[in-house]
Amino acid sequence: MPLSGFPELLPQQRVVEDAVLDRLRRVFELHGFAHIETPAVESLDTLLTKGEIDKEVYVLRRLHADAEDGESDRAGGLGLHFDLTVPFARYVLEHAGRLEFPFRRYQIQRAWRGERPQEGRFREFTQADIDVVAKDVLPFHHDVEIARVMAEALSALDFLPPLRLQVNNRRLIEGFYRGLGAPDPAAVMRVIDKLDKMPADAIAVQLGEIAGLDEAQAAKCLQLAEIRTPDTGFVERVRELGVQHELLDTGLAELAAVIDGCAAVSAVSAGVTIEADLRIARGLDYYTGTVFETRMAGFESIGSICSGGRYESLATDGRTTYPGVGISLGVTRLLMPLLQRGRLTGSRAVPSAVLVALPDDASRPACDALAQRLRARGIATEVAAAPQKYGKQIRYAERRGIPFVWFPGAPDAVRDIRSGEQADADADSWTPPAHDASPQVLSQEALSQEVLSQEVTQ
Amino acid sequence: MPLSGFPELLPQQRVVEDAVLDRLRRVFELHGFAHIETPAVESLDTLLTKGEIDKEVYVLRRLHADAEDGESDRAGGLGLHFDLTVPFARYVLEHAGRLEFPFRRYQIQRAWRGERPQEGRFREFTQADIDVVAKDVLPFHHDVEIARVMAEALSALDFLPPLRLQVNNRRLIEGFYRGLGAPDPAAVMRVIDKLDKMPADAIAVQLGEIAGLDEAQAAKCLQLAEIRTPDTGFVERVRELGVQHELLDTGLAELAAVIDGCAAVSAVSAGVTIEADLRIARGLDYYTGTVFETRMAGFESIGSICSGGRYESLATDGRTTYPGVGISLGVTRLLMPLLQRGRLTGSRAVPSAVLVALPDDASRPACDALAQRLRARGIATEVAAAPQKYGKQIRYAERRGIPFVWFPGAPDAVRDIRSGEQADADADSWTPPAHDASPQVLSQEALSQEVLSQEVTQ
Repeated sequence: MPLSGFPELLPQQRVVEDAVLDRLRRVFELHGFAHIETPAVESLDTLLTKGEIDKEVYVLRRLHADAEDGESDRAGGLGLHFDLTVPFARYVLEHAGRLEFPFRRYQIQRAWRGERPQEGRFREFTQADIDVVAKDVLPFHHDVEIARVMAEALSALDFLPPLRLQVNNRRLIEGFYRGLGAPDPAAVMRVIDKLDKMPADAIAVQLGEIAGLDEAQAAKCLQLAEIRTPDTGFVERVRELGVQHELLDTGLAELAAVIDGCAAVSAVSAGVTIEADLRIARGLDYYTGTVFETRMAGFESIGSICSGGRYESLATDGRTTYPGVGISLGVTRLLMPLLQRGRLTGSRAVPSAVLVALPDDASRPACDALAQRLRARGIATEVAAAPQKYGKQIRYAERRGIPFVWFPGAPDAVRDIRSGEQADADADSWTPPAHDASPQVLSQEALSQEVLSQEVTQ
Repeated sequence: MPLSGFPELLPQQRVVEDAVLDRLRRVFELHGFAHIETPAVESLDTLLTKGEIDKEVYVLRRLHADAEDGESDRAGGLGLHFDLTVPFARYVLEHAGRLEFPFRRYQIQRAWRGERPQEGRFREFTQADIDVVAKDVLPFHHDVEIARVMAEALSALDFLPPLRLQVNNRRLIEGFYRGLGAPDPAAVMRVIDKLDKMPADAIAVQLGEIAGLDEAQAAKCLQLAEIRTPDTGFVERVRELGVQHELLDTGLAELAAVIDGCAAVSAVSAGVTIEADLRIARGLDYYTGTVFETRMAGFESIGSICSGGRYESLATDGRTTYPGVGISLGVTRLLMPLLQRGRLTGSRAVPSAVLVALPDDASRPACDALAQRLRARGIATEVAAAPQKYGKQIRYAERRGIPFVWFPGAPDAVRDIRSGEQADADADSWTPPAHDASPQVLSQEALSQEVLSQEVTQ
């Protein structure tokens, strides 16, 4: 019955995705990124601009067009966007006259691809993108900014397994291959990009056969790809390989600037490490300088969960070029394996912190008024659906994970149904503990603790 | 270039929609409604369950399927949802075993209809729905709850023109028509539903020709449709028409209960009035009791912006029936006319409350650190893009609507660039006024005041 590749969450799982999106949004806004949304739908012309026919676009057709005029509606040529970068490039061109550059934007939306579903791949998925785009020239410090902001955003998701934000620079690797005398640097990049999937000796063979390198050159390319440092130590290690090229110098300096610029963030980012990783090439993408990928510990097989980089021409109208730098977080790709394995869940399925018990049907208006006094102070509250015996009403709260039951009386009393503790309370002053006020995200560790403490109290 | 019917907002307009969605979400959660989202995509079988062929469904097809296997992919039969009720009904059936009933949910998502675009109609639009659904029996007090919660949510949107939430009851009008001896009550309802578009005497003629009523009966139906009271006064006015029917009695009692139950909310809901309006019938929809519509003052021509009601069978799997009551707010329909006319806008296009001025390129790390101290206290801050003359940096802030420019020094100083007032400040303690901390929604009245105060200070 469920459609394969179109994930759907239960309310308690939804708590987790909502927490992720709220925290991302908060960090992006603290850094001055403006929120935009674009339609889910773009013209096929826009979607296929970059010739990305491999993206498995979903084309739209009106149901009625089928019956009435066969194929004619196809002329409209609409499809669902498959990422947020292509729509953003169109947005920048369309609204350029009404935007201030450099323009920082974040965009959190779903995208669609008609791919064959497999682990870590979905037909409908949510992405969270940040980009800075400028007119003509985009200063390099924005590359550093993008890395810092996303690292800070990821570290706000403190319930995730450890993340590794890997940074490289296309100029660095292209300069290295050129300095080495590679006849086709792009071919080298494409082969090296398969390192995740193929053993090094098979890569060495392909570097000869496909990219035209001799054995010594191939060996150096593999040595370069092995360099990975949490600081600017990579510069010396590249120098030791003895390759010289102007582009390599530029690339080394840029990558060092990003790694240096992230040092401050790195220090505070529990769970997120930032490192130079010279294997990262971002395949055939249109990046021109800095490139980013991100791995989640224990989930390396799902690939990069957060990727991006610098593109010298995000968009162009022929006269003006808009360079950009950005990074895109695959929210669905990141969360679904954790939710499916039960590694993350919400602490309850409803927002309610309090259930107001209902003594009898005649008391409903009084109970509603009581609930409203709690809500007026920001406490999510519901009133019991029916005037059952109090034991049944407590179980009603228990099944929903609502921590407190409020008993109207003179005076009122409130019970923490986990501990059974009950005390007199006033709806105009009582406040639940902060961690009970709204549903929390529980990670596997917290979950076992929860189970433990339940066992202890029983 | 823009696709007709697919609205897209500039960042400053986006502030308004974000504020609307945040406030709705807050009220819904305060009342214990759980958040769910469903895929944008459903099987065509699901979408066309109710035989709603008139809904102009967008059907999906993979681009590659076009080339490779022609029509064969159609067998997959996927389409975009055209509302949030059909997907919710499918969700309830699919997950019934893992949900607790009565189940309160809110759902805020886009929907799509391949309609011809016109004022107030869009091909892609956002809806905010709340529903309560139960197994087998749903007590009537949830009808009151739904009205109260949506009224409270609407009144939280205090920048909107006055809203009128109109309530009626299908049992009331059906009972009235039956008591009157109408041979086909449904036909009467369909004719009466045209009262917005046709004059009363034309309706009277149709009541005779289509619904088979005599002149006296038609006159009474029109008299009923004229009844509109802010309180339970409608009961007496209906009784005065001298029609008797058991179903009419039930309907009168139910509608009185909703209106009574909303009295408390009504009193506090600045800008939202709730009234019994016996003209409301919700056309051919599948409602069985309470029905809701909502009009916005000055924008009556766009129709109801918030509609819903009670349906005795939201979903059924043959054995179990799930009755529900809900209401759906057309966020896009509501906002677009206000945004397009400039009646609402955001106070600025960026979240930033502060621009940290940059004395020279070498100071960037120090300025970044300074900005980070402000952000750590929740103050959205950006650092100037380039070390231009301070006058230029102030204009950079001005163009973006950023109210404060921070000048690093010993001590630092912060300037309100609207008043020109400048004072020494410490990044660990200075706080902007609450109304400057984040972008605000400005309504036309606020806008003219803003212009006025700018004129005064110049």
